[in-house]
Amino acid sequence: MLATRVTKMLGIKYPIVLAPMALISEPQLVSAVSNAGGLGIFATAFLSADEVKSQIKEIKTLTDLPYGVNIPLASANLEEVFDVLVKEDVEIIYTSVGNPEVLIQKIKDAGMIHMHVVPTSKLARKVEELGVDIIVAEGGEAGGMLPDNPVSTMTLVPQVVDAVEAPVIAAGGIADGRGLVAALSLGAEGVLIGTRFIASKEAKVHENYKKAIINAKDNDTLLIKIGTASLRVLRNKLLDETEQKINIFEQLKFTKIALKEGDIENSIIAMGQSSGLINEIKS
Amino acid sequence: MLATRVTKMLGIKYPIVLAPMALISEPQLVSAVSNAGGLGIFATAFLSADEVKSQIKEIKTLTDLPYGVNIPLASANLEEVFDVLVKEDVEIIYTSVGNPEVLIQKIKDAGMIHMHVVPTSKLARKVEELGVDIIVAEGGEAGGMLPDNPVSTMTLVPQVVDAVEAPVIAAGGIADGRGLVAALSLGAEGVLIGTRFIASKEAKVHENYKKAIINAKDNDTLLIKIGTASLRVLRNKLLDETEQKINIFEQLKFTKIALKEGDIENSIIAMGQSSGLINEIKS
Repeated sequence: MLATRVTKMLGIKYPIVLAPMALISEPQLVSAVSNAGGLGIFATAFLSADEVKSQIKEIKTLTDLPYGVNIPLASANLEEVFDVLVKEDVEIIYTSVGNPEVLIQKIKDAGMIHMHVVPTSKLARKVEELGVDIIVAEGGEAGGMLPDNPVSTMTLVPQVVDAVEAPVIAAGGIADGRGLVAALSLGAEGVLIGTRFIASKEAKVHENYKKAIINAKDNDTLLIKIGTASLRVLRNKLLDETEQKINIFEQLKFTKIALKEGDIENSIIAMGQSSGLINEIKS
Repeated sequence: MLATRVTKMLGIKYPIVLAPMALISEPQLVSAVSNAGGLGIFATAFLSADEVKSQIKEIKTLTDLPYGVNIPLASANLEEVFDVLVKEDVEIIYTSVGNPEVLIQKIKDAGMIHMHVVPTSKLARKVEELGVDIIVAEGGEAGGMLPDNPVSTMTLVPQVVDAVEAPVIAAGGIADGRGLVAALSLGAEGVLIGTRFIASKEAKVHENYKKAIINAKDNDTLLIKIGTASLRVLRNKLLDETEQKINIFEQLKFTKIALKEGDIENSIIAMGQSSGLINEIKS
């Protein structure tokens, strides 16, 4: 019943994909999702090519099932990291933050399945023409990087489904079975889930981060502008004190404070609006 | 299959409710929706008590089926308009923009079914305790008045459903059968639809307004601040020229320009993000 083009193309049991969250979607969480029948996606943002290499090797020791690797196309070490993926025989690539044109030929040559994330139906049509295999439609309720004035999952997904032939994965605001069924009703053939997976035993994230997700309600997140993109984060003391003026360099620093030190007031805690739906830590 | 507590309580065939849109949800559109098996809701915002009275009489000549009447609780002529509703034996009241406490006893005394719209699960719980019968959970993709930093339909609806015992109607971003099924999957027992019904033959709105909805894509709407609330509107020349600084008094003027004169560049055209999903005018 849950078989879709996405499960068939990716060789997975359930149409559930782990969102590639920087410094969160690492080998342990990736392999846990893949071993449970979904698709784990390893996030390479902020990592060196050597770190990417050793962590992919680690994923391979933790699962024999399909997994994917995300590369933000704006990464400074893009080519170097992509070479590691080719050498490690990575079969599923998930590109984000940038135009897939810069890498598309190399991805085709490597025979990888190519997933790419878009915020509008116009961009969905464009990346399908470039040759992307699976399109992730990310609505504005998602945590992480978003465009200005994002479109919500409820309205974006059916528009993207209408715009392209490729299978579409819905992202943003999905945290439980109701969200999965709703996304499939809208025409998606899979869902991408981030915030729900942070609040899991397998996520190597400070307990306070997980508790912050569990405690967050409805409208406790805000979209803040960092560089040219917007980031959905928990409203906290840092945001009040800085009047939400945070630059790209501070972003990494403050994200690490949340993830490693668990200081949830003086840090950046990216999370989606779905945090309001999450009330316990699960496996 | 489409019977829910909402259809039973309201005495309607389909769990589809017309959003009360100021100066748009008037007798012709209200009765058209009710006659088609949904629930039309007449919007009394900006109308005098006399106008409300004559328009309710008109609705009664156009349909024998259930219809509702909306009162914004912040209206200056609240008591006067409510008295008209009682005299005209209106059976279903839909309150919005304000605290239902000011009217709740009178509504109970009149034996009306009481619907009220909320933007968070916290407020849903509060109005249920007051005695509201049906709760409309309105997500940020909706057109019309919203709070700052609204929560999306995808994440709001299941949170409201979890928070209350009363039946919940989902609003915001719903324009077709996929949205209806998605909303029911999220636990709603009905949907409220606005923008889709403006682009209908029965809506007494300038053709250019309808065309603007049909032409709008994905991210063509913006949330602008008017008074203490936010309004989702089409991005146009007026917004650029005024840098989105429009006050409450101008709102009515510019809304009328859109509705009556059809000048879509120098006016306020409220619409939801679902406008991107709407590609033709239907009955």
